[in-house]
Amino acid sequence: MKRLIILGSTGSIGTSSLDVIASNPDHFKVAGLAAGGSAERMCEQVRRFRPLAVAMGDQKAAGKVRKEVGSLTRVFAGSDGLIDLVRDTEADAVINGLVGSVGMVPTITALESNKDVYLANKETIVMGGDIVMDTVRRTGRRIVPIDSEMSAIYQCLKGEDHRSVKRLILTASGGPFVDFTADELDAVTVKQALNHPNWPMGTKNTIDSATLMNKGLEVIEASRLFTVPGNRIDVTIHRSSITHSLVEFIDGSLMSQLSIPDMRLAIQYAMTDPERLKSPYGGLDFTKPFTLTFEPPDYERFPCLKLAYEALEQGGTATAALNGANERAVEAFVAGDISFTNISEAIGRAIDEHRYIPEPTIDDLIETDRESKRFIERIISG
Amino acid sequence: MKRLIILGSTGSIGTSSLDVIASNPDHFKVAGLAAGGSAERMCEQVRRFRPLAVAMGDQKAAGKVRKEVGSLTRVFAGSDGLIDLVRDTEADAVINGLVGSVGMVPTITALESNKDVYLANKETIVMGGDIVMDTVRRTGRRIVPIDSEMSAIYQCLKGEDHRSVKRLILTASGGPFVDFTADELDAVTVKQALNHPNWPMGTKNTIDSATLMNKGLEVIEASRLFTVPGNRIDVTIHRSSITHSLVEFIDGSLMSQLSIPDMRLAIQYAMTDPERLKSPYGGLDFTKPFTLTFEPPDYERFPCLKLAYEALEQGGTATAALNGANERAVEAFVAGDISFTNISEAIGRAIDEHRYIPEPTIDDLIETDRESKRFIERIISG
Repeated sequence: MKRLIILGSTGSIGTSSLDVIASNPDHFKVAGLAAGGSAERMCEQVRRFRPLAVAMGDQKAAGKVRKEVGSLTRVFAGSDGLIDLVRDTEADAVINGLVGSVGMVPTITALESNKDVYLANKETIVMGGDIVMDTVRRTGRRIVPIDSEMSAIYQCLKGEDHRSVKRLILTASGGPFVDFTADELDAVTVKQALNHPNWPMGTKNTIDSATLMNKGLEVIEASRLFTVPGNRIDVTIHRSSITHSLVEFIDGSLMSQLSIPDMRLAIQYAMTDPERLKSPYGGLDFTKPFTLTFEPPDYERFPCLKLAYEALEQGGTATAALNGANERAVEAFVAGDISFTNISEAIGRAIDEHRYIPEPTIDDLIETDRESKRFIERIISG
Repeated sequence: MKRLIILGSTGSIGTSSLDVIASNPDHFKVAGLAAGGSAERMCEQVRRFRPLAVAMGDQKAAGKVRKEVGSLTRVFAGSDGLIDLVRDTEADAVINGLVGSVGMVPTITALESNKDVYLANKETIVMGGDIVMDTVRRTGRRIVPIDSEMSAIYQCLKGEDHRSVKRLILTASGGPFVDFTADELDAVTVKQALNHPNWPMGTKNTIDSATLMNKGLEVIEASRLFTVPGNRIDVTIHRSSITHSLVEFIDGSLMSQLSIPDMRLAIQYAMTDPERLKSPYGGLDFTKPFTLTFEPPDYERFPCLKLAYEALEQGGTATAALNGANERAVEAFVAGDISFTNISEAIGRAIDEHRYIPEPTIDDLIETDRESKRFIERIISG
C-alpha cells in the first residue's frame, strides 16, 4: 500500500490522481492533500479519501475547511502550512500537481523528508534546475515525471543504458494556433487560446501549450531530468497527441510511448513504476485506420520555444527568469493586458535584462522569479 | 569479443550480419560460416573474415571451397556438415539466417551446444514450436530475434514484466498488393510479387510478404517467443515499415520501436543486447514532415494470415504443415506452376488433410513438413 500526498488536489492533475487512487484502493491511500482556495471541493475530498492532513494556501479557505472537516483531518494553512504538510505527514511519495514556481520548494522538501516525487510541476525543474537534481542525487529518492511527454521518455529509457541515448524527441500537439500566420497570432483572443485541441488542462498549461512555451519548458525539464543537453533534444509537432515522445538511440533505433490522450495513464504509471497496473483508460483502436503525423516546429512564429532553448543553454538563473516572466505574462494575457505575441516579446526582454547569476542558490532563484515577474508588471503598466 | 557463426552467410541476412561485424571489428569475430551452393561468394567471405570453419550444403560447392581456401579454414559439407559446424565450432552465438524449415535443427543444435541464437529463420519457431522453446528453457541459452518485427517487440518488452503485456501489435507493410482487388490478385505475376516496396529480401520472404504469410508466420513466432496467445496478437498494415511493431500493456500504454527500414539495425541489436552500439545506419529525419499510417488488414483478400492464426490455435503439427506447404507452394508460384491465389488455397488444403499430431516429436515435425510439401506437389501435378 503506497501512501500519497497530493499537492494541487483540486486541480486537473490532482483530481486525475484521485481518480487513479479511487480505482485502485488496494494499492494506494491518500495521506495528505493540498490546494489553494477551493474549500468546498477540499471538504468533499476529505470526506471521500480521509487523509491524515490537508493544507490550504488561502487562510480563509483553511478556516472554512477546519470548521467543516477539522474533526476528520489536520488542517494546515498558508505556504508554510504546505511545507509542513509535505514534511510532517507520513507518506511514501508526493504527487506535485501545483502550478507555477510555487511548486519548487515543496519538491525539495519532499525529497529531503525521504519521499519520492511524482512530478507534474515542470516549473520545479525549470526554475530549480541543478539544485533540485542535486537534491535527488543527495537524498537517493526519485523524481518520476507525470506529464505525458516526460513519462514517455522515462518509459522509453526503461532497461536502457544512459550512454546509449542519442537524442530525445518531444512531441507537441502544436496547440490551437499551429497553422496561424504571424498576423493571425497577433489577433488571438483569450477564449481562442484556452481551447486546447486534445487535452483538458488548467489555464496556465493551456496558454503555454498555445505559445509552445509548454514544450520549451519541457525541453528544459527533459534536459535536466534525463541529463541530455539541449542540442540533443528535438521537438516535433504531432497534432493528435498519441505518440507522447520518442528516444533515439546511438544504434539508430527509436523507442516511443503511445496512448490515447488521458493524463491518468502517466499519473498511474508514475505511481506503479517499474510495474504496471490494469487501467480502464487506455488502448488504441487498431480495428480502424489512423494516422500519426510529425512536422518540424516553426521557431519564428513560436519564439517561446527558441527562448527556452536559449535559456537552457545560458543556464544559471536564466531558466528561472524565463519561467517567472512567462507565468506573469500568461496572467497578463488572460487578463487582457497584453496580446498573444506580446507574451514572448515580454519574456525575451525579462531574460535579457535580469541580473544573471551563473551558480545561483535557492534564494537567488526565488528572487529571480520575483524580479522577472515585477519586470513584466512594469511592462504592462507601460 | 563475441564469436559468431553465421548460417546463410551469402544470403541477405548473412551479408547484412557480416556488414555489422565488419563495422565493429573490436566487438565481433566470425567463428564460422555456412551457405548452400555459392562457392565463390563463400571463398571471398573466408578470405575476408577468416573463420575457423565453414559449411556448404552443396557437396560440389564444398569441394570447390575446400580446393580454393581449404588451407585457411576447415570445410564441412552437406546437411550433417552444417550441424557439425554449429556443434563443434567454438562460438558464443549462432546467427540463423537460413531460409525455410531447414533452419530448425541447427537452432536446436546451437542451443544444446551452449550457444545463443540470433534468429531470422522464423520457420524454426513456426515448425518447431514448443520443442524449440522447451530447449531454450532447458539449456538456459537465449533466442534473440533479428527480424525487425520480433526485434521491435523484444525491445518494447525490455524492463517490463511479462504479466503487464496486454497484446502485441505486429506491423505489416502490406506488400505490393495491399490495394489489389481479389481479381487483380489472381492475375499477379511472379515479377510483380518479387517487387517489395520497402525491404530488399530473398525470394521466399518477398513472396511471403506479398501473401501476408510472412506476417502469419510472425504471429505464430511471436506467440511462442513471447508466450502470448494468438487472440492477443493483432496485425496492422503500416505501409512505410518505420514502426516495426508495438506492445500494448495492461495500463493502456503502448511502446513501439521505430527506425528506417534497414535489417542491419535489428541484427546489430541482437548482437549487442541489452546494450547498444553506435551504428551508421539509422535515424529518422524529424526536420521534414512525415506520416505513419495504420490500417486493419483484410483477412478475406489475404487468407494466408487467417490460416496462420488457425494453425496457431490448432497447435501440434498444424503450424509445421502450414509452414511446409507454404514453402513448397511459394516455390510452385515462382516456377509458374500455380497462381498467386492458389498459394493460400493449396496451403489450406494441406493443413486440413495432414495427419494431425497434437504433441509431436521433432521427427514428427520433420515428417509433417515433408508430407505437406509432397501434398502440394500432388496438387501441382494435378
